[in-house]
Amino acid sequence: MGAATVTAREATDRYPTRTGTAATTMPRHDPVVYPSDGGPLDGAQMHAFDGDGFLAIECLITSAEVELLRDEVERLAADPGLAGDERVIREPDSDEVRSVFEVHRLSEVMARVIADERVAGMARQILGSDVYVHQSRVNRKPGFVGREFYWHSDFETWHAEDGMPAARAVSVSIALTPNYDCNGSLMVIPGSHRTFVATVGETPPDHYRHSLRRQEVGVPDHGALTRLTEDAGRIVTVTGGAGSAVMFDCNLMHGSAGNISPYPRTNLFVVYNSVENELVDPFAADRPRPDFVASRHVVSL
Amino acid sequence: MGAATVTAREATDRYPTRTGTAATTMPRHDPVVYPSDGGPLDGAQMHAFDGDGFLAIECLITSAEVELLRDEVERLAADPGLAGDERVIREPDSDEVRSVFEVHRLSEVMARVIADERVAGMARQILGSDVYVHQSRVNRKPGFVGREFYWHSDFETWHAEDGMPAARAVSVSIALTPNYDCNGSLMVIPGSHRTFVATVGETPPDHYRHSLRRQEVGVPDHGALTRLTEDAGRIVTVTGGAGSAVMFDCNLMHGSAGNISPYPRTNLFVVYNSVENELVDPFAADRPRPDFVASRHVVSL
Repeated sequence: MGAATVTAREATDRYPTRTGTAATTMPRHDPVVYPSDGGPLDGAQMHAFDGDGFLAIECLITSAEVELLRDEVERLAADPGLAGDERVIREPDSDEVRSVFEVHRLSEVMARVIADERVAGMARQILGSDVYVHQSRVNRKPGFVGREFYWHSDFETWHAEDGMPAARAVSVSIALTPNYDCNGSLMVIPGSHRTFVATVGETPPDHYRHSLRRQEVGVPDHGALTRLTEDAGRIVTVTGGAGSAVMFDCNLMHGSAGNISPYPRTNLFVVYNSVENELVDPFAADRPRPDFVASRHVVSL
Repeated sequence: MGAATVTAREATDRYPTRTGTAATTMPRHDPVVYPSDGGPLDGAQMHAFDGDGFLAIECLITSAEVELLRDEVERLAADPGLAGDERVIREPDSDEVRSVFEVHRLSEVMARVIADERVAGMARQILGSDVYVHQSRVNRKPGFVGREFYWHSDFETWHAEDGMPAARAVSVSIALTPNYDCNGSLMVIPGSHRTFVATVGETPPDHYRHSLRRQEVGVPDHGALTRLTEDAGRIVTVTGGAGSAVMFDCNLMHGSAGNISPYPRTNLFVVYNSVENELVDPFAADRPRPDFVASRHVVSL
């Protein structure tokens, strides 16, 4: 397409990104919290989520459930039937399993927790609608060699590569091992969910194959990150015991340092998208990523 | 030398390491705290240092001094006369200055702080003798791209490569910018200073040229690190404002994560060795490292 032609898609894209030109920022166009009939969160928690873009919750699930889920992670990582499966992602420098995707389909135990009112109920309450699983995965950051994850907004990727039209999705990360300040825990820039940071560079074909291992495009620039951090006045490292959780807005800028500690870090990670925010064609990629990374089947929980 | 021959050096080496065979650990042979006539530290601080191997101190120097030292760092990093100097170490992936060595000779401002009773006095009190500067440097961990430093005991290197006979030295790191839990601050394993972890692999010639950029030998194995952490029950990330400091024993196992935050981290780092612990020939290297890395001139402060 020529530079002078504006397609229908470009005209309706409220969050243009990866256009190959300058990095820009713009205010978020969508609400963070939608009206709802209530749920597990109280008013203070809703307010905190609205302002900060994230909410940490101790003891979201029981230690018995943690135990059950950890056994399930080991079973999945060791399953010979999944050894060559593209849903199983390994560390670039070793062969350790880093992530297993689509665990809500691979494991009944995990599917049950993911659909539980304590977890999915928070997402419904924030998003003011029914929700479905856009993505689920287990992340294992091994001790000593766990790699860093550079800053990014998930929504930037989901919009560009999956065709998620609005910023109306939340992630819940449930800690299956303790998240310390020393083992590569989630770092967030509070309030950054209110700014959309467009990134430079076009999405290469089948980008997800590499980006799940190491990021290449979709990387925000230093200037934008510095401004967001200055506005926030702080970066928060989210710590918590096994069974704790953090829910965060899809556009919150987050990342994590490498893990040289001996403590592995394993989290169950679920993205809930509003059923009113169904995926369309990708806004900045040739074709959508596969279903195990970004489900195109809206099945209300 | 044949494997069956034991040289005089080997017979008197109380901390054999880098022998090329198995990794071993042994109890420390030297005291941590020596009898002294007092100094800036109180009894509780001395006790904590003895047990933990480190001590964090808020506001060791004033904000005016911090300001002065920061200006001095920028002056040294930008000094065209030092551009090709081997005392100036740059990041492997960029050209940013990561460290400047021998700052107690390069800068009068820094020399004054290094000799100040508030700083050197702590070292004298712990080591129970006069002290001299074994090494001094400024470390700059830039924002976004600051690299991790894997776990190590400084004494293991100083013994192997510099010929430091006993574990009777301390380091003081003075924060010139805030050390947060998000910007690659010092992580320590409390109590690990009481165990010497011998490492595998021989020291290659001129190893310091590479090791100042990235470690290759002198790396403790996962098993030893796991046991030390289990014994400690925790890893401590040492945080503090600009002007705060941490003093730690030369054999304390420490490291730091990378720094993806926008906050650069700049520290003035000084190693004080006891004048009764003069360097001899290296215990596991062909020849000593240069003077700017490990001074062989005992000049009491």
